[in-house]
Amino acid sequence: MATTLVRCREIVRKVSVIALKYQFDNCMSQGFRAQSTVARSLVYPEYGEPSKVIQQLEQPLAAPKDNEVVLRMLAAPVNPADINTIQGAYPLKPPLPAVAGNEGVGEVVATGSAVKALCVGDRVVPKHTGWGTWRTHALCREDDLIKISKKLGIIEAATLTVNPCTAYRMLKDFVKLKPGDTVIQNAGNSACGQYVIQLCKVWGLRSINIVRNRAKIDELKCFLTDLGATHVITEEETKKLDLFKSGTEPKPKLALNAVGGKNAMEMLRHLDNGGYMVTYGGMSREPVMLPTSALIFKDIRCVGYWMSRWSKINVDSDERRRMFDELIGLMVAKQLKAPLHTVIPFTQFQEALSNTINPKGFAGTKYILDFQCQ
Amino acid sequence: MATTLVRCREIVRKVSVIALKYQFDNCMSQGFRAQSTVARSLVYPEYGEPSKVIQQLEQPLAAPKDNEVVLRMLAAPVNPADINTIQGAYPLKPPLPAVAGNEGVGEVVATGSAVKALCVGDRVVPKHTGWGTWRTHALCREDDLIKISKKLGIIEAATLTVNPCTAYRMLKDFVKLKPGDTVIQNAGNSACGQYVIQLCKVWGLRSINIVRNRAKIDELKCFLTDLGATHVITEEETKKLDLFKSGTEPKPKLALNAVGGKNAMEMLRHLDNGGYMVTYGGMSREPVMLPTSALIFKDIRCVGYWMSRWSKINVDSDERRRMFDELIGLMVAKQLKAPLHTVIPFTQFQEALSNTINPKGFAGTKYILDFQCQ
Repeated sequence: MATTLVRCREIVRKVSVIALKYQFDNCMSQGFRAQSTVARSLVYPEYGEPSKVIQQLEQPLAAPKDNEVVLRMLAAPVNPADINTIQGAYPLKPPLPAVAGNEGVGEVVATGSAVKALCVGDRVVPKHTGWGTWRTHALCREDDLIKISKKLGIIEAATLTVNPCTAYRMLKDFVKLKPGDTVIQNAGNSACGQYVIQLCKVWGLRSINIVRNRAKIDELKCFLTDLGATHVITEEETKKLDLFKSGTEPKPKLALNAVGGKNAMEMLRHLDNGGYMVTYGGMSREPVMLPTSALIFKDIRCVGYWMSRWSKINVDSDERRRMFDELIGLMVAKQLKAPLHTVIPFTQFQEALSNTINPKGFAGTKYILDFQCQ
Repeated sequence: MATTLVRCREIVRKVSVIALKYQFDNCMSQGFRAQSTVARSLVYPEYGEPSKVIQQLEQPLAAPKDNEVVLRMLAAPVNPADINTIQGAYPLKPPLPAVAGNEGVGEVVATGSAVKALCVGDRVVPKHTGWGTWRTHALCREDDLIKISKKLGIIEAATLTVNPCTAYRMLKDFVKLKPGDTVIQNAGNSACGQYVIQLCKVWGLRSINIVRNRAKIDELKCFLTDLGATHVITEEETKKLDLFKSGTEPKPKLALNAVGGKNAMEMLRHLDNGGYMVTYGGMSREPVMLPTSALIFKDIRCVGYWMSRWSKINVDSDERRRMFDELIGLMVAKQLKAPLHTVIPFTQFQEALSNTINPKGFAGTKYILDFQCQ
């Protein structure tokens, strides 16, 4: 029975890959001039464990027509949401077979005759979530891309659209914060957490950052303090926190939660009356728990934030452009650094996947796939 | 040791009662003409179990001066929040010794020389929470009172400022509902729940009402359906609810939670994307639990509502007057009925307290103290 199931899955996989090849071939048969460029993509023909379902696919690329462009991808990160998407455990389900990856940076290498806003050599990031960034080259419409400054470093550009934007919006959209106000967050060492710390510093906000206790906790505390954290405390230290009782620190009006469970409940205890807890992750896999009295008598509001929803609603909004410009400006001025990362050749993607699922190191590291160093 | 503690408490109680008497006597010694009227009040000199700390206090009442009026109290309910206030377990802590009771209706029997807006015979309710309604008579400033229509029944008037207002605001202030929209609530048989059902009916909204299973469940379902409930379901039925899946019912945009724990989590599963869960009670004594995915991907917002906070902020607002006028209009037109209740002579308050702490009957009953039938 189990053997039959495995065989069935194998057949589904093969059929799906054949279907993907057909899409490419069909595209080429429309009469566009095929180039000598071969695109190599990380494709999943069905949902499942990334190490099992992801496979490399090689296809010669068609020439761009009309408003199409050809991109040479430079780098793309491996985010936890990419893993969940491949597993089929994410609400966004790209039609299968799909190219993996949701963000990354590319360079325009050829343009169709009707392309207006892009030139060869321009740097671009995808406009939409689920575009499929884990590939050496791509043929797409110019309208699917956002042009960005070449002054921006490759790593910062590859990781621009998810984590720094999530941190930016969570600090802007729920509570009107003014310099001197305090923000509290858990998962302070996550990629998003590191941007929260840095943006707080830039905007004159104080940040209390909760991290899990670990072997090299002092090293992590130093690292986050250097980034700009006002305080870094462990989960255990959260319980006996007296910063707010003693009046040393104004009570936070905003709590950012990527953990859930008891961790989030402890964090919430320190929130000021009328404050917001914004949930954007659930690493503990436990539900968010709210004491009834905090909701009723302290008027605490508990909401969620999903970057993909915001980006979809604001896909071409001025606000999105303003946010990108501000973030890029801060990155170019070295006021925002990319989070801890490890660059790895694209062909070693299995290592990146495995280490993203089971993080190593004192603060975790973000794996960046490099498509030009193979 | 235990005996000493009991004696200490007894001394505290006596001293506090003496202090209260001193307040009255001091008031009378200012030269106001004492009347033959004796005010009997239910007073607690310290926080504790109501059956132990509440005592009757008799005091002759001073004549009203300037902008003062003398009230003859007609009726006042025993609300769970009154019990919690006496226990010291409520965030509002009136200075001790205090007269118990937070809402009720009285009739003006004498007015001071500078009173402008009230006449003898007018019906009034207290403007502020914690005013102390459990007494036969009261001397207070006219500005502490709200005049209401004499057309309103005594029971409806006595219970006007808490439950119908809570239901009204929760249905108005979080989600913009239009006729045909659905609201889901637990504790559908509570005093507030009964008003939610009736206001939904008046405003053309559909209501799904969750109640605990019990001996006479069919009787309760009939009672709530007669009030205007669209559906009445038990907690167990909530889990297998397919009203929304089958498209029979539009998904609710608003959930009202007075229970917490798993009950609230089950209710939340049926909420539409972007919907609000408003918590105003926690009968299960368990925290509110929110699946992380509901917050992030369904954009569910979880907030609290506290009538006392709203009333304090809106104490003299036009919005508060409009709400009272609309509710009173509906009550006079018999479109809003007072919840199930039992009227009991004021002197039998111990029975009312005990039955409020441990409710009896198929839907619970609200005890109303009658101050004129002794």
